[in-house]
Amino acid sequence: MSEHVYKSIEITGSSTKGSDDAIRNAISKAADSVHNMDWFEVVETRGHIADGKVGHWQVTVKIGFRLD
Amino acid sequence: MSEHVYKSIEITGSSTKGSDDAIRNAISKAADSVHNMDWFEVVETRGHIADGKVGHWQVTVKIGFRLD
Amino acid sequence: MSEHVYKSIEITGSSTKGSDDAIRNAISKAADSVHNMDWFEVVETRGHIADGKVGHWQVTVKIGFRLD
Amino acid sequence: MSEHVYKSIEITGSSTKGSDDAIRNAISKAADSVHNMDWFEVVETRGHIADGKVGHWQVTVKIGFRLD
Amino acid sequence: MSEHVYKSIEITGSSTKGSDDAIRNAISKAADSVHNMDWFEVVETRGHIADGKVGHWQVTVKIGFRLD
Amino acid sequence: MSEHVYKSIEITGSSTKGSDDAIRNAISKAADSVHNMDWFEVVETRGHIADGKVGHWQVTVKIGFRLD
Amino acid sequence: MSEHVYKSIEITGSSTKGSDDAIRNAISKAADSVHNMDWFEVVETRGHIADGKVGHWQVTVKIGFRLD
Amino acid sequence: MSEHVYKSIEITGSSTKGSDDAIRNAISKAADSVHNMDWFEVVETRGHIADGKVGHWQVTVKIGFRLD
Amino acid sequence: MSEHVYKSIEITGSSTKGSDDAIRNAISKAADSVHNMDWFEVVETRGHIADGKVGHWQVTVKIGFRLD
Amino acid sequence: MSEHVYKSIEITGSSTKGSDDAIRNAISKAADSVHNMDWFEVVETRGHIADGKVGHWQVTVKIGFRLD
Amino acid sequence: MSEHVYKSIEITGSSTKGSDDAIRNAISKAADSVHNMDWFEVVETRGHIADGKVGHWQVTVKIGFRLD
Amino acid sequence: MSEHVYKSIEITGSSTKGSDDAIRNAISKAADSVHNMDWFEVVETRGHIADGKVGHWQVTVKIGFRLD
Repeated sequence: MSEHVYKSIEITGSSTKGSDDAIRNAISKAADSVHNMDWFEVVETRGHIADGKVGHWQVTVKIGFRLD
Repeated sequence: MSEHVYKSIEITGSSTKGSDDAIRNAISKAADSVHNMDWFEVVETRGHIADGKVGHWQVTVKIGFRLD
Repeated sequence: MSEHVYKSIEITGSSTKGSDDAIRNAISKAADSVHNMDWFEVVETRGHIADGKVGHWQVTVKIGFRLD
Repeated sequence: MSEHVYKSIEITGSSTKGSDDAIRNAISKAADSVHNMDWFEVVETRGHIADGKVGHWQVTVKIGFRLD
Repeated sequence: MSEHVYKSIEITGSSTKGSDDAIRNAISKAADSVHNMDWFEVVETRGHIADGKVGHWQVTVKIGFRLD
Repeated sequence: MSEHVYKSIEITGSSTKGSDDAIRNAISKAADSVHNMDWFEVVETRGHIADGKVGHWQVTVKIGFRLD
Repeated sequence: MSEHVYKSIEITGSSTKGSDDAIRNAISKAADSVHNMDWFEVVETRGHIADGKVGHWQVTVKIGFRLD
Repeated sequence: MSEHVYKSIEITGSSTKGSDDAIRNAISKAADSVHNMDWFEVVETRGHIADGKVGHWQVTVKIGFRLD
Repeated sequence: MSEHVYKSIEITGSSTKGSDDAIRNAISKAADSVHNMDWFEVVETRGHIADGKVGHWQVTVKIGFRLD
Repeated sequence: MSEHVYKSIEITGSSTKGSDDAIRNAISKAADSVHNMDWFEVVETRGHIADGKVGHWQVTVKIGFRLD
Repeated sequence: MSEHVYKSIEITGSSTKGSDDAIRNAISKAADSVHNMDWFEVVETRGHIADGKVGHWQVTVKIGFRLD
Repeated sequence: MSEHVYKSIEITGSSTKGSDDAIRNAISKAADSVHNMDWFEVVETRGHIADGKVGHWQVTVKIGFRLD
């Protein structure tokens, strides 16, 4: 990380499978428009309940990427 | 969520399988007595260690449900 | 936990598989030098991104163990 | 508040008018089933956006009431 | 705590004697209606001042109990 | 919110009328360049004082919008 | 704010009308004894409940003023 | 607390006897110069260690008093 | 504290008598292996409930000691 | 700041010289693409250690700029 | 700190040189009216940006002083 | 950081020169007994005041190092 400068953005991914998969989806979607992503940090783990069960997971991550 | 009113309760579920499963157990148990559950939010992820390994996971979730 | 005294340490485990596995790795490594571990609590969930995907997970846990 | 004992519950009220009105709605609804309410504290102020405008406000309050 | 599910409630106890006694009063009152209480955690310690002295202590505890 | 991915941004709106109006101004301005806004959350409520009175309110909101 | 030095104080204002009005009352009262007030920040929003309705609002603000 | 305005100050009291006594000392000293004190809230509990034992307790309280 | 360097550790002490006594037990146990302890700070106050009463108190303190 | 609307972004700057210089680098880099920057706030101060010494500092700042 | 009682105040100092200098300015100004200052703690580090560079630093410190 | 496991410790360094130098002293002292230090994070910045000026700075850092 030496003399580089990084920007952080906050993305919320969803998944019906689990919390790790919601994070993968958030990063996968961010990769469409952001390059040089370096790290992520979980900010919040929530989810939607339907019929008394977890409907889908919603995990918010802060993603850091290098500014060229 | 328009004009509805919601109440939140805090439930801790356990599981020997993993953190997501502990959440599913918390919500499944809450469904025995609470209706119209709408969302959850992870408050704390802990666990018990036995013989130098994770014995079981204990995840505390805040659960929101609609008041009729 | 009656009249015992406990000490807490903070360990970060890594895994390419997922967040629960990173916790298991942290506790497994701690077991090399610490005995009587009793509980853990997740402090922070982060990870490294490589090629627009999660490269590995890094989960920091506080681990409590009984002082003899 | 001398020698009394109080219980706190967490309620989220909604309103299309504003944040204060969402609090009033939360307390009004809680009054249907809870007596001797004494104080409230704002925990979170959120809202829903529709067509680029605030659709409705959602304010979560912790409400304290005296146990008889 | 293995496979059990727990619920947490928040209770504020008062006492003219001291902060520990306010906690004992909170738990004693909760025992009137809640069974299988397992642990507590102090959330806030406040008090009322009268004539330039502590009039009474008010300690809020989160109490966890097992759901049968 | 099922399988969608959301991004959050942080906007501060101002108003001489009140805190709710400052939020409306923040969201109205954000609508100039952001589509599919779904929710907001109040992060901070501040203001400027002039001549011993509130000059204007400044409310910072986190705004979530769906990535197409 | 260039080379100035500021002091912050914490004031709680009350109002039966609403939360913004409680802030105005806090600042108006502070103006009796403090000069050069520059900004405020909301620290806590609480209130008193009477007969199942909001009796009055109590908003605590941190107020910054320039030291001459 | 109806239409009154309150100011809060932060005081740290010390005691060799215990944490409650440190709070009593803080309030007793504040009473020398402040009138109409109404409530306190514990902000921090610390202490000094001498010869491997608690030398004295240092408890910081926020104290609220009514402005006339 | 001039030019010294300090290390902090986290210890949880227990007591059936009260919260202050749990702190004394934590520090007394730490004194078995740590020298030059200088200060402590309360991190968390919890406890175990048995038969509807406080079974024992568990107080976690951060302890700072001078590195020689 | 009267009737303007502001956006905040989060930038991490690095420096081998010190923490203030890392902030200057973050703002200097942000100035390449953002205009009307008005204020910053330090969110986190970290750094990398190499050979038992500070290799470089990494300071994360939230930067607010006016939306035209 | 034995049996003394301390009061804390919050002061924001400014400097065009750097964050440490802003703290020195805050304490130097406080020394005009407060005696027996004993310690400080950084609460917030902010600053003003002018022409894409740090214009001046603004650091808020909590300052503790002994009450005679 | 791939498959490694890290431990974190908390160290407070002092300096009469400034906050960055206090961090350097903390890390330099830790290097006497800890190897493979990788990163640090500032936890708290405090200091001692003597004769109305900063006597020395005390900065607490969390230091992470790789377990072999």
